Amino acid sequence: MTVPKYLTQNRGAISAFIDKYDVFLCDCDGVLWSGDYVFPGTVHTLELLRKQNKQVLFVTNNSTKSRQEYKRKLEQIGLPTSIEEIFGSSYSASVFIARILPQSYPELKKRNKVFVIGEAGIETELDAEAIPYLGGTDSTYRREMTPEDYQLLAAGDPSVLDPYVGAVLVGLDFHFNHLKVCYAYHYIRRGALFLATNLDSTIPSAGGLFPGAGSVVAPLVKMLGGQEPLVFGKPNQAMMDAIQEKVKFDPRKACMVGDQTSTDIRFGIEGKLGGTLGVLTGVATKHDFFDDEFRPHYYIDKLGDLLEGA
Amino acid sequence: MTVPKYLTQNRGAISAFIDKYDVFLCDCDGVLWSGDYVFPGTVHTLELLRKQNKQVLFVTNNSTKSRQEYKRKLEQIGLPTSIEEIFGSSYSASVFIARILPQSYPELKKRNKVFVIGEAGIETELDAEAIPYLGGTDSTYRREMTPEDYQLLAAGDPSVLDPYVGAVLVGLDFHFNHLKVCYAYHYIRRGALFLATNLDSTIPSAGGLFPGAGSVVAPLVKMLGGQEPLVFGKPNQAMMDAIQEKVKFDPRKACMVGDQTSTDIRFGIEGKLGGTLGVLTGVATKHDFFDDEFRPHYYIDKLGDLLEGA
Repeated sequence: MTVPKYLTQNRGAISAFIDKYDVFLCDCDGVLWSGDYVFPGTVHTLELLRKQNKQVLFVTNNSTKSRQEYKRKLEQIGLPTSIEEIFGSSYSASVFIARILPQSYPELKKRNKVFVIGEAGIETELDAEAIPYLGGTDSTYRREMTPEDYQLLAAGDPSVLDPYVGAVLVGLDFHFNHLKVCYAYHYIRRGALFLATNLDSTIPSAGGLFPGAGSVVAPLVKMLGGQEPLVFGKPNQAMMDAIQEKVKFDPRKACMVGDQTSTDIRFGIEGKLGGTLGVLTGVATKHDFFDDEFRPHYYIDKLGDLLEGA
Repeated sequence: MTVPKYLTQNRGAISAFIDKYDVFLCDCDGVLWSGDYVFPGTVHTLELLRKQNKQVLFVTNNSTKSRQEYKRKLEQIGLPTSIEEIFGSSYSASVFIARILPQSYPELKKRNKVFVIGEAGIETELDAEAIPYLGGTDSTYRREMTPEDYQLLAAGDPSVLDPYVGAVLVGLDFHFNHLKVCYAYHYIRRGALFLATNLDSTIPSAGGLFPGAGSVVAPLVKMLGGQEPLVFGKPNQAMMDAIQEKVKFDPRKACMVGDQTSTDIRFGIEGKLGGTLGVLTGVATKHDFFDDEFRPHYYIDKLGDLLEGA
C-alpha cells in the first residue's frame, strides 16, 4: 500500500524526486492556477525543470478551453509553450470522433455530426478536425423548453433533431440547462453515441468548488438507466494513448502531477508512469491522498515548493 | 418469483382482481394521463370503482404540481376529488420540513428557510405549512453565473447565501440550470440538509420521456461524492406513512397501480400492500414488468381495460 511521501521543506527528498524523472505531465487547474490566480512559484518551478532538460507536458481535462487557449494562457503567465506540449480532453475526443469513430462504428458513417453540450474549447477542437457540430455555444439552446419542443422531441421530428447527428459529446458547460439535457437524451435514444470529455465531479474556481463535466453528464446517465458515456479525459487510457503517440518517452521516467486522486493520480498509476505527485492547491485534501483508492507516491503543499530543492 | 398476470381482455381475472381490494392507490402521470392527453376509459374506470365502494387515492411523485392543482385537474377531467385523497411528494416533503426536521435536527432550528430547486407545486405546499423559502420559480435564479457569483459563492458570502437556509429541497425543475446547481451545492456544503421530493429518472410527456426529479438531483449527488438526499416520494416509506396517517385502511386489501417498477411497484411491495398493478401507458415496458427487480402482481395495457370485467 502506497504511503505518500511529503516533499515540502524536504530539500534532499525534492532533489531525489526531480532526479528520478525526465518527463513531468502537469494537470493545470488546481496545480498551476485556480481561475485567474497563479499559485506562487509556478512559473519559476516549471522554468527550472525545463532548464534541467526535463520535458513538461500540460494535460488537462478542462474541455472549456482549446489547446490554443491554454497556449495563450501559459504564455501570458510567462511560460512559452508549443501546442504539441498541451493535451486536453476536447482535443482527445475530437481525434477519436474524426479518426476512430468512422472505423469502429460504420453504421454511423453517414451520421457525422456531433451534438455538443459544452463551451468554445470543444468547438475549436472539433473545427480543427473539420467535424460538423450543433449545440455548444449556440444561443438557440440557451432558452426554456416550449410545449412544442416536448411534442417535436418526443416525435423525433427532424426539424429539431438533426438526423445526421451520430454522437453526443458532453463536456463542462457553464450554460447547462434543462433543454440541452432533453435534446441530448433524445439524440442518444435515437442511436447517437454517448461521449464525454471527462467525468470530473467538480472543478476548483475562485477558491471554491463548482460543477465539473461529470456533473453535467450525470442527469443523462440517470435518464439512460445507468448507461455510462465513452470518456476521453484522465483517467481514461485514451488520453495517455494520445500523449504517447505524439511524445515518445519512457513511462517509467515520467511523473504525473495533479490535484485529484480519481483523475490525475489514477491516470498516472493506471498509465504505469514511474511516479505521481499530488498537490494540495486543488480538489484533494491531505486526507484524500492517504485514504483514497488511488494515492500519490509523493505530495507537496504547492507545485512551487519544488523550488526549495531544485 | 412473481410472474405478472396479464389482465387485458381477461374478464374473469379482472373481476377477481377488483374483488380482492378495497383501496386503489393510483399513480397519475403515465397511468391516468400523459401530459394533457387522458387515456381512454380512465374516468369511467375510476367512477366504476368508486360506485363499487372502492376507495381511490391519488399518489404522485410529480412535485411540479400541488395537491390543489391535482384536485383541479381531476375535476376538469370529470372526477371530483377531495384534497385528502391526493398525496404528492411536495406535500410529503413539506410535512417533514415543518413537523419532523425541527425535532430531528435541533441544530437547524434557527435555519428555518429552504432553498428550492423546483416548480410552483413545491412552493404551494411549503406555503401551506408556512415554511419560508427562496429559489424555486424566482426568476433571479434563471440566469447565467457571473464572475462575481463564483467569488461570492466560494467565499460563502451572506449576500448570496442566506445564512438562515437549513435545507435544500430538489424536485423536478423545468428551468433547471448551472447557477441553481452551484447555489444548492454551496448551501449543502455549508450544512444545509439535502432533500429531494423523489428520484424518478424520467417522466413521460407528449408520448416521450423527459428528465425527472432524479435527473435534476444527479449533478448534486455527483458533486457531493455520492451523498444521496433524503427522499419523500415513492418508493420511500415516508410517503406511505403520510398516506396511512390520513387514511386508515388494511394494507392487505390495498393495491398500488403504477407505470414504473422502481417507484410505483416497489412502493407497493415494500409498503406491504396486498397487490400491485402495472400499466403499459407510461415508462415501463412489458419486458420491465417481467425482468425488473420489482415486478407487479398484475399488468394491463391501460387502466381503462379494467372496464371489461368491472
